[in-house]
Amino acid sequence: MELLDRLTKIKMLVFDMDGVLTNGKVFVMPDGTWFRTSDIKDGYAIQFAIKCNLIVAVITGSCDAGMELRLKHLGVTEFHQQVKSKSSSLLNLIQKYNLSQNEVLFMGDDIPDLEAFEICGISACPADAVSELVQSADFIAIRTGGNGCVREIIEKVLKAQGKWYLKNSIQSI
Amino acid sequence: MELLDRLTKIKMLVFDMDGVLTNGKVFVMPDGTWFRTSDIKDGYAIQFAIKCNLIVAVITGSCDAGMELRLKHLGVTEFHQQVKSKSSSLLNLIQKYNLSQNEVLFMGDDIPDLEAFEICGISACPADAVSELVQSADFIAIRTGGNGCVREIIEKVLKAQGKWYLKNSIQSI
Amino acid sequence: MELLDRLTKIKMLVFDMDGVLTNGKVFVMPDGTWFRTSDIKDGYAIQFAIKCNLIVAVITGSCDAGMELRLKHLGVTEFHQQVKSKSSSLLNLIQKYNLSQNEVLFMGDDIPDLEAFEICGISACPADAVSELVQSADFIAIRTGGNGCVREIIEKVLKAQGKWYLKNSIQSI
Amino acid sequence: MELLDRLTKIKMLVFDMDGVLTNGKVFVMPDGTWFRTSDIKDGYAIQFAIKCNLIVAVITGSCDAGMELRLKHLGVTEFHQQVKSKSSSLLNLIQKYNLSQNEVLFMGDDIPDLEAFEICGISACPADAVSELVQSADFIAIRTGGNGCVREIIEKVLKAQGKWYLKNSIQSI
Repeated sequence: MELLDRLTKIKMLVFDMDGVLTNGKVFVMPDGTWFRTSDIKDGYAIQFAIKCNLIVAVITGSCDAGMELRLKHLGVTEFHQQVKSKSSSLLNLIQKYNLSQNEVLFMGDDIPDLEAFEICGISACPADAVSELVQSADFIAIRTGGNGCVREIIEKVLKAQGKWYLKNSIQSI
Repeated sequence: MELLDRLTKIKMLVFDMDGVLTNGKVFVMPDGTWFRTSDIKDGYAIQFAIKCNLIVAVITGSCDAGMELRLKHLGVTEFHQQVKSKSSSLLNLIQKYNLSQNEVLFMGDDIPDLEAFEICGISACPADAVSELVQSADFIAIRTGGNGCVREIIEKVLKAQGKWYLKNSIQSI
Repeated sequence: MELLDRLTKIKMLVFDMDGVLTNGKVFVMPDGTWFRTSDIKDGYAIQFAIKCNLIVAVITGSCDAGMELRLKHLGVTEFHQQVKSKSSSLLNLIQKYNLSQNEVLFMGDDIPDLEAFEICGISACPADAVSELVQSADFIAIRTGGNGCVREIIEKVLKAQGKWYLKNSIQSI
Repeated sequence: MELLDRLTKIKMLVFDMDGVLTNGKVFVMPDGTWFRTSDIKDGYAIQFAIKCNLIVAVITGSCDAGMELRLKHLGVTEFHQQVKSKSSSLLNLIQKYNLSQNEVLFMGDDIPDLEAFEICGISACPADAVSELVQSADFIAIRTGGNGCVREIIEKVLKAQGKWYLKNSIQSI
């Protein structure tokens, strides 16, 4: 089946955090806490996808209270932190929402994401993912992590589904 | 009418914040507060434009107390945050200053800015604006958001109006 | 002896901090404290190398309490800060772990690292090291400091030793 | 006189802060305070220049308490903040140290620096200085502001004076 056809079936978009929603860098404060940067254009696409009734989830081995608030503000209710196995976490989400695997798109950038690639309909990665991910992804974004790769894949899905249009009447937050 | 002629008529410059005055990234702190980066060369141009009696305004769907202080320090009195409709906000400014639409330049980078494009004399965007903006802008800057696109368009306007000259005797702040 | 053969002998990987584990920039807070950024993909490789029983050490003339916690979390027990002489510090490590010099790889980016280059089996530097380091390094990474050069050299070592494989079953932290 | 000859005469190096010692960006905190990034390789060159008995000064229209501490730590005693006129400040330094103008190198990146260009022996700018500075500078660095332009010009001066050599026996701080 062609990628375009497979894009029309997607009902859930699942993203890794570091290197996908962010540029893969953490700011390390003297007390050991971290913070990250987030891309506003990615955020616009996430909230618009949710308004189009797509499920958006984030699965990460790390944790970040600030990103949790940011994602909640965008409408993301499925933010799974400190996850040991991304495939288990992804399978739980598939079961919870009563989906088939080919209704799920997963975007990751490093080796711990590979196990999730095997149980999703479309595997995607940013342009600067590690070579192992680039070699096995169905879709390699032109844009890098934290710099528009999330916007890019969401636009692909929504355009394939006829839901991306101008003047879509939502504000950027 | 040629762009150069239209530039001579501009009396008000209006900028989006994220992706125009900034590089479109937010630093997300653990408590959920954000901060942004600002470009000093952009700031120089903003204060110089104000000294040349141009009106400079910022309209954003987001909010940022630190940027508000920064802009106030540069002389910007029109900083409109948490705006739901950029066209309404822009029309209010046009009315307040008794301007015609072709005396207004607006620079934005994402879809919520498109409605403002339709009611300004010159629409402009940074080099890294989303494709929809690039396709409809009158002027596409060579420089990206937060990295000199604001300086670039202000220089264009002031040069067209014969107001940009060396040794303009103001300090960078 | 070819580089590939020499890579198979490496038992200890030693990294400079600024410009190697980081991009060589420090964020300078108003009270004079600093913080740095760290790359998650580098972190993945560091913890994996430790799980493969390689010794990983960091030697720096500077100090950073946040990075110390980050490295400890990754499994690095040898973090030597405010070091006056990198060669002395490196020789101490070689003695402590009862190694020969050709079992040690050192990666640095600036002139204070040159003295360590002379007492290690493989000298390495990021793509954006200063010219003196680039000229004398055995291995020049394609990637820059803080942007994957550490991941790159660790992959080189582990692949030469047959220890880098997919699904290596550790999570990114 | 050739640039190389003029470099041999330099006794004082004077730098602008924003866009020269930094990349021209400020991080704007919610309370309105700012912070900046500083390059470690630049810092190495600054302290080495001071150990070679060159005078290093910084003149800026802005102010930054963290950078003041950083520069003091590197050995810079002449840090002049919130300067209204860079030429006046520079002339004061020339008088204080009993120098002639051709013993002074000044590096700046924006229009307020132009007046200092006229009263120094060598005018220099980073690669990403504004066009007016690039057009009038004696030396245009290959590197950009905050990314090695300071290191580059200091190396030029010290090499011309026969003072830049390997194993120069100082640590990076």
